[in-house]
Amino acid sequence: MRFISKASLGGVTEHLFTLDEIPGVLWTPEDARGTRPLILMGHGGGQHKKAPGILARAHRFAAEGGFAVAAIDVPNHGERPTDEEFDRIANEYRARMAAGEDTAAQDIAMYTLIVGQAVAEWQAVLTALHQLDHIGGGPVGYWGMSLGCAFGIPFVAAEPRVRAAVLGLQGAPVLAGTAAQITVPVQFLLQWDDQLMPRAQSLALFDALASAEKTLHANPGQHGDLPPSETDDSLRFFARHLG
Amino acid sequence: MRFISKASLGGVTEHLFTLDEIPGVLWTPEDARGTRPLILMGHGGGQHKKAPGILARAHRFAAEGGFAVAAIDVPNHGERPTDEEFDRIANEYRARMAAGEDTAAQDIAMYTLIVGQAVAEWQAVLTALHQLDHIGGGPVGYWGMSLGCAFGIPFVAAEPRVRAAVLGLQGAPVLAGTAAQITVPVQFLLQWDDQLMPRAQSLALFDALASAEKTLHANPGQHGDLPPSETDDSLRFFARHLG
Repeated sequence: MRFISKASLGGVTEHLFTLDEIPGVLWTPEDARGTRPLILMGHGGGQHKKAPGILARAHRFAAEGGFAVAAIDVPNHGERPTDEEFDRIANEYRARMAAGEDTAAQDIAMYTLIVGQAVAEWQAVLTALHQLDHIGGGPVGYWGMSLGCAFGIPFVAAEPRVRAAVLGLQGAPVLAGTAAQITVPVQFLLQWDDQLMPRAQSLALFDALASAEKTLHANPGQHGDLPPSETDDSLRFFARHLG
Repeated sequence: MRFISKASLGGVTEHLFTLDEIPGVLWTPEDARGTRPLILMGHGGGQHKKAPGILARAHRFAAEGGFAVAAIDVPNHGERPTDEEFDRIANEYRARMAAGEDTAAQDIAMYTLIVGQAVAEWQAVLTALHQLDHIGGGPVGYWGMSLGCAFGIPFVAAEPRVRAAVLGLQGAPVLAGTAAQITVPVQFLLQWDDQLMPRAQSLALFDALASAEKTLHANPGQHGDLPPSETDDSLRFFARHLG
């Protein structure tokens, strides 16, 4: 893990890093000493590690919760090169979605192409972050919506170091089998008028989670309209389960 | 409004009262001075104004939120006389529910028999409570599950003094039209494995609420299994909207 730059704003220090070919960012409370719980944040499709929705939440998690927070560019996103096969599937996915057609085949293709790599990368990043003095080997949370949930479900299912997760804006049926392997507490967010994810599929994915403690939070609005109060709720959820 | 008794426990004072033939209870922070927001709590079917679930939440709302909190015995419950017609419908309702049969006809009959009276009683109690020095005419919230939601929906729809409501454990289709008149912020609780309320009907009732700001919270478990974390969430919801 190689640290590239460091800058502070509003009580939070942002460290850019790379691990092999993975570009990432770590936020910690300014002058953080000693170990602290870590939240990993998975960005959405077409976004990147410092997309506005990631950045704003990461700052609050670090400043108000005292957490360390990390995000990476997942394959084919942000500063990373794009793969032709991924591009072809993603274009097909967007075209079918815009036409209101079923995207299950594209979901499966994208998932098969990239999920193994995404999970392995998150695991390597987590192991490296846990070596840092001001993080240590403490409890880990995962926050990811949409594509960040599609990659998050297999990661959380595979990774015993993750103790709690905020997931959502996702209902691809291909994820149900893996969701049924998740047993940690989950807060699952659903937008009631989501133009991208059919409501029934999202409810079915929530249903599939094996967690004894799971809560669905549904709010009016489209895919991009998560209300600010859900960030408060995520913060309290992580404080309860990782604190 | 006639006050009958007063007792304090754990920083909360409990006042028993009657208003005409309505028996009620008011909880306030001990030694409360000056005005404060008021939460009205509607108990469930077969319960009463001091049922354990009401009592425990009322204490937390008063002790931790500084709210005044009131509950009454609704008609045919608690200390109140029972009406033969109500008893007949309630017995039929319980029998059909136990047999897994549809209860829509009984819902409508009970609703028609009693809802006008229940709404008028809540309004009279609210007006009387607002005359008290240590409450005053400030913002009002309503909390009611199950039967407390069935009566709460028409009350909240009819009553402009109510600014926010926590409702749920209810999905009777007869309530949908009235739910569509509610515009204040609502937190709506649903138990994912509710043995009394079909999930699809509860989702439809949440859908019917006209509130721009409404959040569905769904948790695993049966009708009586609301998790303790939802009391924390109710407290924060009321603090946000009535504070």
